[in-house]
Amino acid sequence: MSSFIDILVVGSVAFDSVETPFGKVEEVLGGSAIYFSVAASFFSSVGMVAVVGDDFPSLYLEFLKEKNIDIRGLKKVKGNTFRWKGKYGFDLNEAFTLDTKLNVFQDFHPEIPEEYRNAEYVFLANIDPELQLRVLEQVKKPKLVALDTMNFWIEGKPDKLKEAVSRANIFIINEGEARELAQEPNLVKAAKKIISMGPKTLIVKRGEYGALMFHEDSVFAAPAYPLEFIYDPTGAGDSFAGGFMGYLANTHNADNGIIRQAIIFGSVMASFNVEDFSLNRMKYLTYPEIEGRFKEFRRLCTFEDIT
Amino acid sequence: MSSFIDILVVGSVAFDSVETPFGKVEEVLGGSAIYFSVAASFFSSVGMVAVVGDDFPSLYLEFLKEKNIDIRGLKKVKGNTFRWKGKYGFDLNEAFTLDTKLNVFQDFHPEIPEEYRNAEYVFLANIDPELQLRVLEQVKKPKLVALDTMNFWIEGKPDKLKEAVSRANIFIINEGEARELAQEPNLVKAAKKIISMGPKTLIVKRGEYGALMFHEDSVFAAPAYPLEFIYDPTGAGDSFAGGFMGYLANTHNADNGIIRQAIIFGSVMASFNVEDFSLNRMKYLTYPEIEGRFKEFRRLCTFEDIT
Repeated sequence: MSSFIDILVVGSVAFDSVETPFGKVEEVLGGSAIYFSVAASFFSSVGMVAVVGDDFPSLYLEFLKEKNIDIRGLKKVKGNTFRWKGKYGFDLNEAFTLDTKLNVFQDFHPEIPEEYRNAEYVFLANIDPELQLRVLEQVKKPKLVALDTMNFWIEGKPDKLKEAVSRANIFIINEGEARELAQEPNLVKAAKKIISMGPKTLIVKRGEYGALMFHEDSVFAAPAYPLEFIYDPTGAGDSFAGGFMGYLANTHNADNGIIRQAIIFGSVMASFNVEDFSLNRMKYLTYPEIEGRFKEFRRLCTFEDIT
Repeated sequence: MSSFIDILVVGSVAFDSVETPFGKVEEVLGGSAIYFSVAASFFSSVGMVAVVGDDFPSLYLEFLKEKNIDIRGLKKVKGNTFRWKGKYGFDLNEAFTLDTKLNVFQDFHPEIPEEYRNAEYVFLANIDPELQLRVLEQVKKPKLVALDTMNFWIEGKPDKLKEAVSRANIFIINEGEARELAQEPNLVKAAKKIISMGPKTLIVKRGEYGALMFHEDSVFAAPAYPLEFIYDPTGAGDSFAGGFMGYLANTHNADNGIIRQAIIFGSVMASFNVEDFSLNRMKYLTYPEIEGRFKEFRRLCTFEDIT
């Protein structure tokens, strides 16, 4: 492992219990920092800042190390790891939270290790915007900061969230949350309002309908990969962000065309991730498979020469 | 007007009363055959088979003639024209029907004029599948038959509908209706089931999320054009079908790439149509505007070289 990292992610590590129409798992590895890191690890070096309890098995640490994820920023403290319990119906776009136990995540105060502070790419996963801001105070001169959030913070800490948004280059958010944050039902108008808050690029995630990117005066529409078998949508958004940031950090470029390709790589990672519970699909995923699906996205989207 | 036509459409002509969050209109021109014909008329010659009452103003007939739409198949009978009254909320994907008065449409028995029977392209808009089958008995040797339907027929006349579907080359249907017809929540699986009923090509309309086409083993995802102002989604599906069939009839080709381009032209026509109530936007639409928006769709979808 090199001592420097390309991407810093700050987010959650969790034990998820998930039920979908296709099966059920109990206390499996999850959390935004985990899904993000594993997806990004296929493209770039990632360092993770998160917290786990003393119930966190070394087996999972081994898995992260195998993926070359830098876990010097993963703190183990006394207590239990964050637990989330959720359920999905046939409409896999909507999760119903059955139970949340923050446990050690309740007192999470991200401390960025010295070795991570030069990271050029920073992903602030969906956590308290005050913590997101504290992370930004600790990093030196990131080239690109991307930020995720959720309705809980839009409603609970709108001012702090807007401050964090104003300091991000790329804001990644769900469709409904974009409308809620902008207080505007029309998505194009909502996007304009959000971009006026600061970020140069807005990515709106639409679940099985793909994603829309608003960047300067251009809009890009990426479809989701049409899958015959979707077992568990948990972690799709964070896998998307991981593939997206991983590709950007790998190319060291943020031109409009590269950002668009990065969105497709993000969509590729999300599409693999939902094919099984937890990180089961990503565990044995190979880079040639990723490239293969990227090419399938090209066939899915083109209306030029199809022969 | 030439005495032969490229495209035959059989559908409804209506007076629509529509309320959206952006305004309200009373008894304006509408109906599937109207929206389809006007959209298709930008690309090909269209003949319309439909019925109106003796309350149908000659002003509207003049408008159709101006658009070079062949109305020899538009029958005027004693009674009132079909009326539909509907409302949309901020979620413009869903229409709430407030009132339907079938009037003369109740006894609609499509008779295809001799001059229309050689039409190579036939569009059977959303009408009773028994009538759709009766149309197919009257046409000579169409090169391409496309068919639309709705949940009312899926639930009310499933067997007749399946017979009509089995005789179509292209089936155009809403996402929810595709799931309902196939009794399958996963759209890819539903598409396979529907294609096994006969049509070579299935186009699934997803409102503001665009359309998916399933054709042989290939899938094409077309986005909807992201609009800042959507006044009235009424007729979007039929304008889509009109642009789609119009382009196909104009190219005289149904290769995978051409069908994809036709879907984009359909999406272009739908995107213009929703910019105003009734056919107000299509009335003054020009072909250069259509080409311009087609190019914008290219920019919207590409993730290759953006500079």
